[in-house]
Amino acid sequence: MNTGLYETIHRRRDVRAQFTGAPIPDETLNRILTAAHAAPSVGLSQPWDFILVRDPELRQEFHQHVQRERDTFAATLDGAAKERFTRIKIDGVREATLSVVVTYDPQRGGPAVLGRHAIADAGLYSVCLAIQNLWLAATAEQLGVGWVSFYREPFLRDLLGIPATVRPVAWLCLGPVTHLEQTPDLERHGWRQRTPVSSVIHHNRWTME
Amino acid sequence: MNTGLYETIHRRRDVRAQFTGAPIPDETLNRILTAAHAAPSVGLSQPWDFILVRDPELRQEFHQHVQRERDTFAATLDGAAKERFTRIKIDGVREATLSVVVTYDPQRGGPAVLGRHAIADAGLYSVCLAIQNLWLAATAEQLGVGWVSFYREPFLRDLLGIPATVRPVAWLCLGPVTHLEQTPDLERHGWRQRTPVSSVIHHNRWTME
Repeated sequence: MNTGLYETIHRRRDVRAQFTGAPIPDETLNRILTAAHAAPSVGLSQPWDFILVRDPELRQEFHQHVQRERDTFAATLDGAAKERFTRIKIDGVREATLSVVVTYDPQRGGPAVLGRHAIADAGLYSVCLAIQNLWLAATAEQLGVGWVSFYREPFLRDLLGIPATVRPVAWLCLGPVTHLEQTPDLERHGWRQRTPVSSVIHHNRWTME
Repeated sequence: MNTGLYETIHRRRDVRAQFTGAPIPDETLNRILTAAHAAPSVGLSQPWDFILVRDPELRQEFHQHVQRERDTFAATLDGAAKERFTRIKIDGVREATLSVVVTYDPQRGGPAVLGRHAIADAGLYSVCLAIQNLWLAATAEQLGVGWVSFYREPFLRDLLGIPATVRPVAWLCLGPVTHLEQTPDLERHGWRQRTPVSSVIHHNRWTME
């Protein structure tokens, strides 16, 4: 597996509709999770956990919750935005081979986590770095990933018995796909366009110089 | 540039002491920032900005602030931990070629950001995904990155004139290095050891089944 980094970064998509449900070999899944676990973390705290959800009933329950949250969001939209949103599929929870729930444990590596005394969220940031490693590794393995964020954290915590001290950060659908789209779903559906990188670069200070 | 993804993920280090200060070609920096900007983001909001800090005075001011925060953290430690911490270099702000400050703008793509109504932090998570893309791209380009988190957000906001509505997320030192260590600094200095990936994997529910 020596897929190029840049090729992987630019080919990666957020997948909703293209999951086939085909199995993932154990060694592939292990490479992906090992890549996630190799992410940088504040104070080397490695504060993440990965819950592999294969149980169809748990996934069905989560999917139904997501559908309710979809309705909640739709109710905030007007006119053209509301119409556009009806065409956008927001999750592949039932179709993907499995789901990976990623969590953050603030107590890991404590009490004195080197580099976290001034920025409480630094541990949460570490978890996200692991998620991006996972996403890129899956892409290099020709799998798709879809991050579902239409859920309430307390619901997910209850569903999977996650301790009160641990925070759910992401529900990721993972598995083989028919293909990866070249253009992000939200751009294809006219929801929003990508911007040029030059629009987000500043020099020395925020104000352009 | 076709460095393998897994090789890059596992070779990546958090650099403090190995920066040379040598220049970075513009096209290299552009590839790295373009990779960061290609990260996934909630509702395709791309809520990140990158402030390239080359000004030596700004970097010196930030470094002095970091040293004060180092003292603040050291004061919380006892005995062996305090002694170990004295040997650990926590930033390469003055030695690295430049610094990249990464920020989060919650208003980007609003008011209705698709996928953020239920999880306010989803936009912050997106910024971290961009940071990991940047980190891996820099590693593939044979550069080093060091994330400095010994700072207070209000100080950094004031230093760089970042608007009150925008949140600083990371100060990243970036540049050529003499080498990347094989073992993380904190492990080499006996601060903390990496754990096996099996220790963070669960099946279906948090409790091991």
